Amino acid sequence: MELTKNQQLDSLDMEILGVLLKDSRIPFLEIARKCHVSGGTIHVRIKKMEDMGIIKGSKLIVDTAKLGYDICCFIGINLEKASFLSSVSEELEKIPEIVELYYTTGEYSVFFKVICENISHLQKLLAEKLQVIEGVQSTTTVVCLLQKIDRNIQL
Amino acid sequence: MELTKNQQLDSLDMEILGVLLKDSRIPFLEIARKCHVSGGTIHVRIKKMEDMGIIKGSKLIVDTAKLGYDICCFIGINLEKASFLSSVSEELEKIPEIVELYYTTGEYSVFFKVICENISHLQKLLAEKLQVIEGVQSTTTVVCLLQKIDRNIQL
Amino acid sequence: MELTKNQQLDSLDMEILGVLLKDSRIPFLEIARKCHVSGGTIHVRIKKMEDMGIIKGSKLIVDTAKLGYDICCFIGINLEKASFLSSVSEELEKIPEIVELYYTTGEYSVFFKVICENISHLQKLLAEKLQVIEGVQSTTTVVCLLQKIDRNIQL
Amino acid sequence: MELTKNQQLDSLDMEILGVLLKDSRIPFLEIARKCHVSGGTIHVRIKKMEDMGIIKGSKLIVDTAKLGYDICCFIGINLEKASFLSSVSEELEKIPEIVELYYTTGEYSVFFKVICENISHLQKLLAEKLQVIEGVQSTTTVVCLLQKIDRNIQL
Amino acid sequence: MELTKNQQLDSLDMEILGVLLKDSRIPFLEIARKCHVSGGTIHVRIKKMEDMGIIKGSKLIVDTAKLGYDICCFIGINLEKASFLSSVSEELEKIPEIVELYYTTGEYSVFFKVICENISHLQKLLAEKLQVIEGVQSTTTVVCLLQKIDRNIQL
Amino acid sequence: MELTKNQQLDSLDMEILGVLLKDSRIPFLEIARKCHVSGGTIHVRIKKMEDMGIIKGSKLIVDTAKLGYDICCFIGINLEKASFLSSVSEELEKIPEIVELYYTTGEYSVFFKVICENISHLQKLLAEKLQVIEGVQSTTTVVCLLQKIDRNIQL
Amino acid sequence: MELTKNQQLDSLDMEILGVLLKDSRIPFLEIARKCHVSGGTIHVRIKKMEDMGIIKGSKLIVDTAKLGYDICCFIGINLEKASFLSSVSEELEKIPEIVELYYTTGEYSVFFKVICENISHLQKLLAEKLQVIEGVQSTTTVVCLLQKIDRNIQL
Amino acid sequence: MELTKNQQLDSLDMEILGVLLKDSRIPFLEIARKCHVSGGTIHVRIKKMEDMGIIKGSKLIVDTAKLGYDICCFIGINLEKASFLSSVSEELEKIPEIVELYYTTGEYSVFFKVICENISHLQKLLAEKLQVIEGVQSTTTVVCLLQKIDRNIQL
Repeated sequence: MELTKNQQLDSLDMEILGVLLKDSRIPFLEIARKCHVSGGTIHVRIKKMEDMGIIKGSKLIVDTAKLGYDICCFIGINLEKASFLSSVSEELEKIPEIVELYYTTGEYSVFFKVICENISHLQKLLAEKLQVIEGVQSTTTVVCLLQKIDRNIQL
Repeated sequence: MELTKNQQLDSLDMEILGVLLKDSRIPFLEIARKCHVSGGTIHVRIKKMEDMGIIKGSKLIVDTAKLGYDICCFIGINLEKASFLSSVSEELEKIPEIVELYYTTGEYSVFFKVICENISHLQKLLAEKLQVIEGVQSTTTVVCLLQKIDRNIQL
Repeated sequence: MELTKNQQLDSLDMEILGVLLKDSRIPFLEIARKCHVSGGTIHVRIKKMEDMGIIKGSKLIVDTAKLGYDICCFIGINLEKASFLSSVSEELEKIPEIVELYYTTGEYSVFFKVICENISHLQKLLAEKLQVIEGVQSTTTVVCLLQKIDRNIQL
Repeated sequence: MELTKNQQLDSLDMEILGVLLKDSRIPFLEIARKCHVSGGTIHVRIKKMEDMGIIKGSKLIVDTAKLGYDICCFIGINLEKASFLSSVSEELEKIPEIVELYYTTGEYSVFFKVICENISHLQKLLAEKLQVIEGVQSTTTVVCLLQKIDRNIQL
Repeated sequence: MELTKNQQLDSLDMEILGVLLKDSRIPFLEIARKCHVSGGTIHVRIKKMEDMGIIKGSKLIVDTAKLGYDICCFIGINLEKASFLSSVSEELEKIPEIVELYYTTGEYSVFFKVICENISHLQKLLAEKLQVIEGVQSTTTVVCLLQKIDRNIQL
Repeated sequence: MELTKNQQLDSLDMEILGVLLKDSRIPFLEIARKCHVSGGTIHVRIKKMEDMGIIKGSKLIVDTAKLGYDICCFIGINLEKASFLSSVSEELEKIPEIVELYYTTGEYSVFFKVICENISHLQKLLAEKLQVIEGVQSTTTVVCLLQKIDRNIQL
Repeated sequence: MELTKNQQLDSLDMEILGVLLKDSRIPFLEIARKCHVSGGTIHVRIKKMEDMGIIKGSKLIVDTAKLGYDICCFIGINLEKASFLSSVSEELEKIPEIVELYYTTGEYSVFFKVICENISHLQKLLAEKLQVIEGVQSTTTVVCLLQKIDRNIQL
Repeated sequence: MELTKNQQLDSLDMEILGVLLKDSRIPFLEIARKCHVSGGTIHVRIKKMEDMGIIKGSKLIVDTAKLGYDICCFIGINLEKASFLSSVSEELEKIPEIVELYYTTGEYSVFFKVICENISHLQKLLAEKLQVIEGVQSTTTVVCLLQKIDRNIQL
């Protein structure tokens, strides 16, 4: 990505972002050392990128299976009428098992990722939380067998 | 999740994990304060969970659109023969635009998430990097219009 | 399967189960002889596994074609609304031609196996029993041409 | 089913079959008592139906989840060429996780039921046993969330 | 087909049917000559097969394109609810462009063949006659480009 | 259909065609009586329409189920390569169970109607005659449950 | 195309049409020179073809991406009921982003081409203009990555 | 569209484009009159937009049906291998019946619009020009029944 893409970011901002994208838990002082500036500067720049909405937070990568969450799946929803989209979407936001949710161009109105403990948990989630939402005609679930890549974009 | 789910984790480990899952960039001392233990203890516990493979790293959440990456999409691949799976998968790992990759139960052999700058970048990625991989019969691409949820599981 | 998988079963239980999974009609005394214990012991252990809900019963394998049931098929149901699932499922349980019924991750809300005498019987079953159930939008039927494997898991 | 459907079976044969279809582990003497004939007669009639290929064996119904087999799924295979059907089918018969296998009218060349311990077992089964079979173009897997009916036909 | 398949037909009936299946317009006397019996016998036998419902009539094979009917297509209908099947089917019987109609196991509730003069005629048929029927959710049309075989079964 | 559609046919030709389309076995003299012309004229006109390729023959409508042919189905073929179309099509013409065959705009390269005695006959037809043809990747079969309309176009 | 196809057009009309189909902005005098007739004649002939409805107008070919319209896509609509077709179609005509709209034989009731500025514009178009139309059950969007051909028929 | 979208175009350019997008055959002098500038200015500005690649040409809108082209359809191609895309695409460019061709995100590798005289022309195009191209596995054709909108974007 060339610097001209976001005219409000200079090369130091980009360098800091690049470091954070590889490891979001790296201490400010280590970023400072890598970028040959003071820790205070790092703090200021990160704060600026947070204020601009470029940095929105960070996400721990955990091995959910080792925590007892064996099932990760993608679920697509078909609606009775397209106009149910926003009300169904609001109900979905209340379900904690849903960790990512997208509106897409594909055959489903909404498409999301779910983490469950086991098949029985998934079955209950579908029957008791998803399929009872007003406007849901059907759900299609694809189970992840293995996640081989989980990384950030590289600047 | 009950504590019995992973017998190697005690309630302090779980408490620390819970804090980190909400904000992976929180300083050790603040975790320590929240959990009423010393910063050193936090360090030891996080190290243990890293060694056990429970904590695998962290990921900055950025607004990729604000960085000039307008297109996020999911791509599924159909193979000429199922036995091409591992060699194709190895080639895919070399492509930096791919940020997540799954083997799933669905109709595609591999299914992955891609971040591109624009439609033209996506077209080149497909034509020059993906569709030339030995064993790829076809690709199906679904473009994300909006991501409404991006969060971690809640312990 | 290792013994540690169900801590309430010991190696004798597993041995008895293994024998029964191969032939559920074998007499207790023959199981006893094979396992070098008394018939009473076999009786006690099987009773225990029945009480634990591990052994749920047994099923005669018959050549249904030779009994005049020429058609075996799998039927998937699409519902008008996902919330009809439990009421439709209850109606399906009353239909004797349905011998197995599953909730699955696939494109159908319910998916079941049916045994019919002939095409005309199947047509009447669909038109008069299935398609009249409140909430059924459509049915998709796949006819089995040949069943090549019908066996139990091997411990 | 009327008796005329298989002219080699009389009403006693049908009565015995009816009892066995409900509970294949019922002792001969109890069947005899129910049918008002001697145990020897039951033995002779069951032997005759076995020789005719009507009774092909019996299958214990176990709660596979309680034995540590959490995953039951249906898998459909698409072949590179239709002519691979019999060689692929022979390879599939060697895989113990496959408990039922059908040739059907639907979109898959072969369609079968598989019992696995967990998602990781299923993933290895797909990658190491199924997708390496010569002639397999792709597999589509549907995971059973709940089996609500498992019974025999009723005469 | 062996004679035992329909015990009410003898070999002369089958011979006559075989002749008629090849050419339904052949005169009785020519059938008689081919079968070495009298024309009266042919008349009696054909009458018998008509009474038994075996012979249901005959159909002229015309080159519909040469008569100004350029478009032949197969149309499948998806219903709003499965229970609309018989009322929709009754409405379809009133449409003269429909020459064959089937209930099938596939994805469509009803599936039929239509003969039209041109694309504009087909468009009007769909919009003004089919899509207005109460209960029709959608139609899918497959246009025949070429009919390579049109013949009867061979006894 | 207006007369101007085929300028080589006059109103008498159309009248004769109309009669034959309703009943192709009607004797010439009866057509003559209905049309108020001589039997010779009918003969001449029909001969002309046969020479023009408008009348291509006739087909007896039989109740195939009553003749022991219980299964009628539509089969679609997917090819390994589109260029196999004509060679596969030639092989299909040799199979007597195929009574109609179309090239269509839909998802299948060829689409045809088959009459079989029973499921076992259909299974053998697929495995031994269709799926062994060089170039056939897969077949999809839809079984007809009931044929509700079988008639000719009405002039 | 032979001249006999439209008996109201002579060879000069066809020649003029051929020139215009290649470049609709060519001045009358240049057409006149190419066709060896006067500019007035060209004017008369084009007017005649406009009056006959053969020439319906002309369309500038612009590089929409260079004008800030990065996204071109095809959208198919599934309706709740087929009878909503004309009312939905009327609503669609009011949406300026839709530049072409077809009724087709395929799986969608209506199928159209849309030009948008970016993904966010497309998302708003779908959510705020298309999915709120009474009768729309769902939309499926296919994004154009590259348009390689954009030309007229050649006479 | 705001003027800032393409910084090389001023409001006069946009005004001229807007006029041309509505009617590409409008004479320069009339554009000049509408925009209150001289014809020379119009000429200069259009030349500039042509040089910038914004205006790429113009396309006559004709009623192809009135010219004897009754069939307009969209065809999608599935390839044997994804890597055949560019060679197949090159072959497609040589076929004059193809008037538009896209690479898209959907299930087809290439997707294009075709104009044919009739069904028989379409059948020959498919069998003799498209399906013989090295690398084409199958084609799926959707026939346009009616085109209800054909217009340009509105600035």
